[in-house]
Amino acid sequence: MKKQFNVTSGPIPGGEKIYVTGSRSDIRVPMRRINLSNTRLDDGEIECNEPVVVYDTSGPYTDPGYSVDLDAGLPHIREQWIEERADTVRLDSLSSEYGRQRLADTSLDELRYSHVCTNPRVAKEGHFVTQRYYAEQGIVTPEMEYVAIRENQLIDRIQTKYEAMAGEPLGANIPRYITPEFVRDEIAAGRAVIPANINHPECEPMIIGRNFLVKINANIGNSPTTSSIGEEVDKAVWAMRWGADTVMDLSTGKHIHETREWIVRNSPVPIGTVPLYQTLEKVQGNTSKLTWELFRDTLIEQAEQGVDYFTIHAGLRWHHVPLTLNRVTGIVSRGGSIIANWCTMFKRESFIYENFEEICQICARYDVGISLGDGLRPGCIHDANDEAQFAELHTLGELTELAAKYHVQCFIEGPGHVPMHKIKANMDEQLAWCNGAPFYTLGPLVTDVAPGYDHITSAIGAAMIGWMGTAMLCYVTRKEHLGLPNREDVREGVITYKLAAHAADLAKGHPAAYFRDYMMSKARFEFRWKDQFHLALDPEKALAFHDQTLPDEGHKEAHFCSMCGEHFCSMRANKSFRKKIQKEMAASCEA
Amino acid sequence: MKKQFNVTSGPIPGGEKIYVTGSRSDIRVPMRRINLSNTRLDDGEIECNEPVVVYDTSGPYTDPGYSVDLDAGLPHIREQWIEERADTVRLDSLSSEYGRQRLADTSLDELRYSHVCTNPRVAKEGHFVTQRYYAEQGIVTPEMEYVAIRENQLIDRIQTKYEAMAGEPLGANIPRYITPEFVRDEIAAGRAVIPANINHPECEPMIIGRNFLVKINANIGNSPTTSSIGEEVDKAVWAMRWGADTVMDLSTGKHIHETREWIVRNSPVPIGTVPLYQTLEKVQGNTSKLTWELFRDTLIEQAEQGVDYFTIHAGLRWHHVPLTLNRVTGIVSRGGSIIANWCTMFKRESFIYENFEEICQICARYDVGISLGDGLRPGCIHDANDEAQFAELHTLGELTELAAKYHVQCFIEGPGHVPMHKIKANMDEQLAWCNGAPFYTLGPLVTDVAPGYDHITSAIGAAMIGWMGTAMLCYVTRKEHLGLPNREDVREGVITYKLAAHAADLAKGHPAAYFRDYMMSKARFEFRWKDQFHLALDPEKALAFHDQTLPDEGHKEAHFCSMCGEHFCSMRANKSFRKKIQKEMAASCEA
Repeated sequence: MKKQFNVTSGPIPGGEKIYVTGSRSDIRVPMRRINLSNTRLDDGEIECNEPVVVYDTSGPYTDPGYSVDLDAGLPHIREQWIEERADTVRLDSLSSEYGRQRLADTSLDELRYSHVCTNPRVAKEGHFVTQRYYAEQGIVTPEMEYVAIRENQLIDRIQTKYEAMAGEPLGANIPRYITPEFVRDEIAAGRAVIPANINHPECEPMIIGRNFLVKINANIGNSPTTSSIGEEVDKAVWAMRWGADTVMDLSTGKHIHETREWIVRNSPVPIGTVPLYQTLEKVQGNTSKLTWELFRDTLIEQAEQGVDYFTIHAGLRWHHVPLTLNRVTGIVSRGGSIIANWCTMFKRESFIYENFEEICQICARYDVGISLGDGLRPGCIHDANDEAQFAELHTLGELTELAAKYHVQCFIEGPGHVPMHKIKANMDEQLAWCNGAPFYTLGPLVTDVAPGYDHITSAIGAAMIGWMGTAMLCYVTRKEHLGLPNREDVREGVITYKLAAHAADLAKGHPAAYFRDYMMSKARFEFRWKDQFHLALDPEKALAFHDQTLPDEGHKEAHFCSMCGEHFCSMRANKSFRKKIQKEMAASCEA
Repeated sequence: MKKQFNVTSGPIPGGEKIYVTGSRSDIRVPMRRINLSNTRLDDGEIECNEPVVVYDTSGPYTDPGYSVDLDAGLPHIREQWIEERADTVRLDSLSSEYGRQRLADTSLDELRYSHVCTNPRVAKEGHFVTQRYYAEQGIVTPEMEYVAIRENQLIDRIQTKYEAMAGEPLGANIPRYITPEFVRDEIAAGRAVIPANINHPECEPMIIGRNFLVKINANIGNSPTTSSIGEEVDKAVWAMRWGADTVMDLSTGKHIHETREWIVRNSPVPIGTVPLYQTLEKVQGNTSKLTWELFRDTLIEQAEQGVDYFTIHAGLRWHHVPLTLNRVTGIVSRGGSIIANWCTMFKRESFIYENFEEICQICARYDVGISLGDGLRPGCIHDANDEAQFAELHTLGELTELAAKYHVQCFIEGPGHVPMHKIKANMDEQLAWCNGAPFYTLGPLVTDVAPGYDHITSAIGAAMIGWMGTAMLCYVTRKEHLGLPNREDVREGVITYKLAAHAADLAKGHPAAYFRDYMMSKARFEFRWKDQFHLALDPEKALAFHDQTLPDEGHKEAHFCSMCGEHFCSMRANKSFRKKIQKEMAASCEA
């Protein structure tokens, strides 16, 4: 009997799952519609409050009409789109040696996802099957239309009269309304990425780029010391529930291959990995046994499972390693330290750098995005913006040109640990060197002295760099530097990053972002407590915190809360003096 | 039998309480010395790691030699200094009518702090007893010397060789070493404040100013719906334990007077209040019964109890009120809404604005600082930086000149809710209009959509505005907008703000701030786990999080953690390739 995994499903409180249909009936973009209650005006009239619609990363799990069956996996919403393009073929068997071995190993049957696809898709000989290639050909794919609808969040249908706040986009080009053609042009230019492996037809397309809403990534994955497949699947779905736009499976423990299969088959968001980790696991952590052939086989293995983007530490070159000798914390990227160790050991250039063109060729065959890893990111405030870091960044910039040659979608990873006053230089350098490729940063943490609170130290840097132009923010949990995050840490990390990304969207002036703040503030002023909870990034926690002191249902209608109480509620007081002033103004107008 | 109150006492893990003596033996500045373990170098040598010394807001409670006795209150460390100045007299009885009434009410004996001082100090006729007045006279008081020592955190004694990071002070003037004369000059110029009521001799002096370390304030206080005196005293001491530089008692419930007495007598940090709250309580929340006389009596009552600074909403003028009519959330300051209501009700100018000179005279007699309240701060993203807000700020700027006339120390309160791209304008306006008076902001929150996480949304704004020049950050807890914070919320809020303030100090380039990050990073790279916990802003939580997955004592020596495990620990990998490279380099030098 197989182990049964459980994930949290069902609607998010106050959210109604809706689908917005595109130009064809199979483009159905899920959104969460937050329905609000009416306002009772002073004159007894009822004012209807329009719902707030937000895009939805949670997949079918929050659709009340969907029966969760992890063993069956998610519906293949992209299958038809991929099929219609007629540029892929199904293989007779897995191309990767390792993939075949694992499949043949019956001792893994107990652990294995039941319906492993043994004939994955690959590009037809001579074809490029990347969204970037299509965009360059002027084609608008269903995926591009899908993300255009998603980014707009139905802003064109808002009827509420409100004065939208002007932002300061700092050079970003944010249209009021995103068209599929705009999406196409951004992708063709390499300024945006839709990670969408042809073997991940379950994936609901999303876009990463400076001129779109700021996205967040949540890392999950077991480590050799802890956690199981079931826990990781649960954490992945849980992270998406709270808003993770992509999930990276960074497993380094046992059964990486099997864990990943479960995750991909049940993931509505793009899945990223660091293939080097698994490659090292295959040689029992012995760096001296790492080879290009093994790495290459791992790329193909994972590409055929449906991984949507790979972190590839191709920018860390042999001659960069000595630049890290005087650092306080050396190389803190796991991938970076492996490569540095390998180069030093064999006294030769990194096999990842040397084979980058072939890596691009592989990625182009499955449309795997490349996240150019920052193996030399600073690991502490002291090491921020040093020579090693920027030397690698410049190499990453060069590599974007090779990716472009093979029509591979790619983006650039960034730090890390950076004090506030050095953040801007990171964005400036990235913009100057990386040909417009999206930037994807880990925080950055703005101080090193708060372990246990590093979701916060990093959210400060993340919000700032998001405003400056970073397209995706990799979350950091409060367990960072201390241990592997659990479920609650993941939730707290995701919400913290959602708020940082949202703050960046506001500052950049994304028109669709501001409406939620506006309606939240209106609900607050009108004491519509339930609407406030429902509009919150974490409706459950907002409700729970409120109810800790005033649990009665009646208090959710009350014109005060336990913070100030009735007499000291400032919002309440406004009603009284506003009415007086308005009456006087009306009187003086008549006179 | 009196109710027994309890507070948390005893050392903070890894911290040793030390006292740094000044030019006279009774200037003893408490610090926390974080002693670190040695590093075992590869060649077997032992490298001694110098302790990190940080200033200490926790008072005698963390001194293992001190017996806590809340009923006796704290030692009067400033008594002699005040006495020596010979410019104050002791009153025969309390000057405030209300103070006398409460004292005479035997039904309050059960609740009352036992040793209420019935003959508080006041300035001798014709004397000014403010730190600002002394500074203007060229006098360096013991309080000024005390804060100079405190700000330096023994930086002059550091022997570790490290390259200090250059900051970007954005116009702040931060000397490498703070002299008492520098403190004096900053206070004389009105650019810094030492809140130090002559009736709060228990207070350990601290300084608030743009050219000093960024400070944080924690709000406590019961509300009409919840909590007791004991809980509030406990929360106050608890907030100081984790790093609150000042505490505001915002009680609005029963027994405000008695609660405050307990808090002041047991507080080693300055206590701030909003006297208008209590004034309104005295008339049962009926704004129409508010009078200048009642307010005046409340100021004197509180000044004679030892409150160190008052929030005075003197900048909100009658004609400002209509400017808030089109706001989404109107007036959200409690004090602001009371004044607006009063002005509208009586159709006349605010009695606080009109009597501001007399308020200054009262404050000058006790050295109560004035925190010029921002009654019109924005309560949501939409209302940020509007006409109402800046109209009041300009009035606050004018009032700083009146305060200067009476040698009263004052600072300016700021927002609130401000999206990231509008934060700088707040600091710019404050610098332009307020004659250099320190800025003291509440956050600001950079989005409205994350109730339950508003310590984080506000810490983002706080860190940014702290870097730009704000001198003190008023914390926001995760319960903000939802309810009254409990003990755990207070701790989380204080640490969150300590990290925001510290991040600002780093960015500004405070030399004493950076050393802690440096030593933390070094400890991290050397796997000195206990040192990492001890150097953390919250050592208990850092340890607890680590131990959730690896609880064994042995793991605190381990060269990995549960996040990556042994094979994937990047820091660990560095040792191996560093050694190789260094060996090669040495060999090539010899050749």
